[in-house]
Amino acid sequence: MSSNYRNFRNNVPWLILFLEAVFIVLFYFLFSNGDESGSVVSYAAFQDVNHMVIFGFGFFLTFLKRYGFSSTGFNLLIVVLGVQCSVLIEGLFDFLLEIPHEDGLKRITKAAVSITAVVISTGAVLGKTNPVQLILMTVVEIIVFQMSRWINSRYLQVPDDIGMMHVHLFGAYFGLAVSSCFSEPSPRSEKNASTPKSALLSMLGTLFLWVFWPSFNSVLSVDNKWQVTYNTYFALAVSAVTAFTFSAMTTKDGKFRMAHIHSAVLAGGVAVGYTANRIQYPWIAMILGLLASVITVLGSYCLQRCLNPALEIHDSSGVHFTFGFPAVLGALAQVVLLIAERETPVLLFSLGYSVMFHIGAFCMTISMALITGLITGLILNLKLFKTTPVTKYFEDQFYWEVSF
Amino acid sequence: MSSNYRNFRNNVPWLILFLEAVFIVLFYFLFSNGDESGSVVSYAAFQDVNHMVIFGFGFFLTFLKRYGFSSTGFNLLIVVLGVQCSVLIEGLFDFLLEIPHEDGLKRITKAAVSITAVVISTGAVLGKTNPVQLILMTVVEIIVFQMSRWINSRYLQVPDDIGMMHVHLFGAYFGLAVSSCFSEPSPRSEKNASTPKSALLSMLGTLFLWVFWPSFNSVLSVDNKWQVTYNTYFALAVSAVTAFTFSAMTTKDGKFRMAHIHSAVLAGGVAVGYTANRIQYPWIAMILGLLASVITVLGSYCLQRCLNPALEIHDSSGVHFTFGFPAVLGALAQVVLLIAERETPVLLFSLGYSVMFHIGAFCMTISMALITGLITGLILNLKLFKTTPVTKYFEDQFYWEVSF
Amino acid sequence: MSSNYRNFRNNVPWLILFLEAVFIVLFYFLFSNGDESGSVVSYAAFQDVNHMVIFGFGFFLTFLKRYGFSSTGFNLLIVVLGVQCSVLIEGLFDFLLEIPHEDGLKRITKAAVSITAVVISTGAVLGKTNPVQLILMTVVEIIVFQMSRWINSRYLQVPDDIGMMHVHLFGAYFGLAVSSCFSEPSPRSEKNASTPKSALLSMLGTLFLWVFWPSFNSVLSVDNKWQVTYNTYFALAVSAVTAFTFSAMTTKDGKFRMAHIHSAVLAGGVAVGYTANRIQYPWIAMILGLLASVITVLGSYCLQRCLNPALEIHDSSGVHFTFGFPAVLGALAQVVLLIAERETPVLLFSLGYSVMFHIGAFCMTISMALITGLITGLILNLKLFKTTPVTKYFEDQFYWEVSF
Repeated sequence: MSSNYRNFRNNVPWLILFLEAVFIVLFYFLFSNGDESGSVVSYAAFQDVNHMVIFGFGFFLTFLKRYGFSSTGFNLLIVVLGVQCSVLIEGLFDFLLEIPHEDGLKRITKAAVSITAVVISTGAVLGKTNPVQLILMTVVEIIVFQMSRWINSRYLQVPDDIGMMHVHLFGAYFGLAVSSCFSEPSPRSEKNASTPKSALLSMLGTLFLWVFWPSFNSVLSVDNKWQVTYNTYFALAVSAVTAFTFSAMTTKDGKFRMAHIHSAVLAGGVAVGYTANRIQYPWIAMILGLLASVITVLGSYCLQRCLNPALEIHDSSGVHFTFGFPAVLGALAQVVLLIAERETPVLLFSLGYSVMFHIGAFCMTISMALITGLITGLILNLKLFKTTPVTKYFEDQFYWEVSF
Repeated sequence: MSSNYRNFRNNVPWLILFLEAVFIVLFYFLFSNGDESGSVVSYAAFQDVNHMVIFGFGFFLTFLKRYGFSSTGFNLLIVVLGVQCSVLIEGLFDFLLEIPHEDGLKRITKAAVSITAVVISTGAVLGKTNPVQLILMTVVEIIVFQMSRWINSRYLQVPDDIGMMHVHLFGAYFGLAVSSCFSEPSPRSEKNASTPKSALLSMLGTLFLWVFWPSFNSVLSVDNKWQVTYNTYFALAVSAVTAFTFSAMTTKDGKFRMAHIHSAVLAGGVAVGYTANRIQYPWIAMILGLLASVITVLGSYCLQRCLNPALEIHDSSGVHFTFGFPAVLGALAQVVLLIAERETPVLLFSLGYSVMFHIGAFCMTISMALITGLITGLILNLKLFKTTPVTKYFEDQFYWEVSF
Repeated sequence: MSSNYRNFRNNVPWLILFLEAVFIVLFYFLFSNGDESGSVVSYAAFQDVNHMVIFGFGFFLTFLKRYGFSSTGFNLLIVVLGVQCSVLIEGLFDFLLEIPHEDGLKRITKAAVSITAVVISTGAVLGKTNPVQLILMTVVEIIVFQMSRWINSRYLQVPDDIGMMHVHLFGAYFGLAVSSCFSEPSPRSEKNASTPKSALLSMLGTLFLWVFWPSFNSVLSVDNKWQVTYNTYFALAVSAVTAFTFSAMTTKDGKFRMAHIHSAVLAGGVAVGYTANRIQYPWIAMILGLLASVITVLGSYCLQRCLNPALEIHDSSGVHFTFGFPAVLGALAQVVLLIAERETPVLLFSLGYSVMFHIGAFCMTISMALITGLITGLILNLKLFKTTPVTKYFEDQFYWEVSF
């Protein structure tokens, strides 16, 4: 551990400082024409998303009993680094393609939505990575995600606000692929658990996310914003109800399990993300919310018992069923809705074309996430990065001065 | 306990799922014309109320040391069920009376305000009901409240935004009536208490409610919204000051008591709810806030010593003095202000008419709350619902998987 | 202690009640013409600032292990008293100078921003003052701050939105001067420390402040609001990154220290306050954020080791380096930017004039804060006010009924 440690001390601050210096220099070159004017995105909507990413996800991840400082602290660190990185990449695209800059607030808002992918991936490796690995993962993931989004919008005609909703899908599968390269914690380890206090703090974060989710889904919508809000709200409401139902059905003794509630109440919001702007009646959103919540709780039940041990994937905060499954469902629902909407069979060709593009975008995103995630995971496990030893997993004390 | 338990396990999930299925079917029939257009209520105002109901009240009720999961979790469950139920009832009224639908966001906002009545009632029976009882209470209460509101607006000419402010009054007295039917917890029980940590989390919820209360009072106002905000702010500010004063006066040793602060800082907001749109000068709102806070602290002092033991009512989180008394004061203030406003004695007849209607609406609401609350309480205590045994009151472990 | 105690009990409630009565009477005389119309400040912006002051600062200060009730509770008390006091003083100025009243919401918003000075000062004496001292300090400080702001705007031509940004500077140095008059706590005292739980709650408050800081800086800006938001966001982002870097550099073993993160993540927001409306490119704000964070962490390192023991100042929550240093840096940056902006050397005279005014405003504010702070500190330590004995520092139990 000693060599690990000294190395860690020497690298981290200088790496971060170097990265920050690079960012500032790039900002100097990319954003110094100052041709920006008033803003399109409302400040309140940006603030909601900002709040979700910094505060909501920060506390959503505090469920581990000895990892509260790292959960909230490192979340803040990667979000602020990721947002800067994301703004730079968009600026670079604009510069290379000679597109005029968007206004500043929209730029940060898009970056804050994009960074959600990284935050979700972090959930999969929570407690197993050191800050250097986290930062490297952040930078790589945000670059790959922006590229995937760009391909989607350029070649697969996915509108920008829908393409952005791939964050959940991308984040979850990228995180899982990275996580599959890390050693599994000992199953008898007690540190990989929550106490009532830490679960309650995590509930605090979850409720924040729940309340602000309609803002998240509607922030980049150009038109019928209120419809997105409305549909998201009902999907979330039914998710929450279903989460309680299925939690009691799948646990021994019919008690509720807090972890189910944490993950399943948000499932509806994730699933409805792709389609909230085209769902016309609330009952459709409600059914989607119900299904999303069901597959989340059942997924959690099956994955933790069968699939994860078999595949040797350890998914610290269950991002696979919390964000992965509902996002897949949402993508599926998008196609089904598209088919159901066309009543006349005349435009069959155009329909097939459109469906194909949606499926293409889905496959492209998920495979890009898995492949680049795996590569990133392999790189992060190089000796160079001084992987945290398994015995030090899930411990604040390894990174923070903690006084009891 | 064993039979209780098994029964509980079998009923809860299926009951909730059945209810949710009914809701979705009703949504299908009631809200499938899609004739809705843009929104009148601002999204930010809706979000504030949503935040209060889900997050603020959820944490406001976490003061019991072993009941944090249930306080926040069940609060979420009943809010989402209640909002759906409330939207359906309004839709049904609109359908039966052939009124055109309001836009979607306004519909949810009104539902979120209405559900506050249920959340307040829950406070009175906190820790004593099982989820089945809670859900039944939610559905019954929201139906009765909507009916009472409809009678108020139809026959007693109460404008809708003022009629909605009866939530506190209705919620408190409905809850007390239900609570009077439940067995009292043993006075020596240690579980019915708070620890410094749980009291601090409850303070977190209280501060949230305090900050958003002006939004709550102004969300449905049609005109002079800013005046409502302004008056509510000052009433709340003076309440907070008075809460500290009277808390120190009524406790032994002149120390402050956290429970007093929790309940009395909000009293001004409740009391000013009825009149915030017609108070012209801040000093009137301030005096109202002062009086509300005084009766809350003194009420807490008197009720807990004299009245509650005599009447055998156990009010877990003190909704009687937190919401009941200030609401009565607010209704009284409404009448006083109405009389004071008319300077000329010419319109005496019209004044008497108007005052009579206000008093009528007040009496109708409170008696409807008490009667239906009592009936609901009696029904909930039927053997069918497997009442929680007194020894299991205030315990998360009875409903949740808790690991220490 | 006994005499202290009894005295405390007798004084506090009556003093507060008397003060509140005076406030209500003054409101009656000052704000009873009711000539106000619609609002200029947006409600959402006011709400954000209100949230920061009540909730953000309340929890920002909960890091002491046994002082959570007092941190959040007394914070609420002094904010509501201070806001009323501040509104009254502005009303009095308007009355004396025969200026027409501003609208109500703007008035409260300005008061909520001004009260930040008091909240910051409270941080310096956290755990060492009793409520009577706190309230007296609040009233005196808010009066002096308003006077200093008035002198700035009247004689030194500082625009109101920039003059308001002196809150951090004024608050920090006033608090330090007051603190220098109080006895130092025993260095071996264990109560003056945080536990992981209390540090996490403080992180909760910090993240709230971080998220809402752009609202704080932009709430009173008349034009280019979005630019203020944008610059503040980037300054805060770089601050957060730098906080992690320098925290790891200055601690033994290269671990992160939570206290550094708490104070340094906000430094950028404070420093950029004066200049956010005139910074044209984000990289300038980023460099300012970086420098602010560096001097905060290094300041914390130096002050706690060398300067504070020498000067015998005990600064409970480190307001000197959290708010004082970044504010000084911000004031300096303002002058540097002013000089850098003028490209032609023609207007040298006018430039010197303008620079002189800025420096004058800075010196006036800081010296007024130090002098009046020292006087206030001396008055508060009179026997009359029954200073809390050093052994009772940092203890909730001295003021609150606490049950474990």
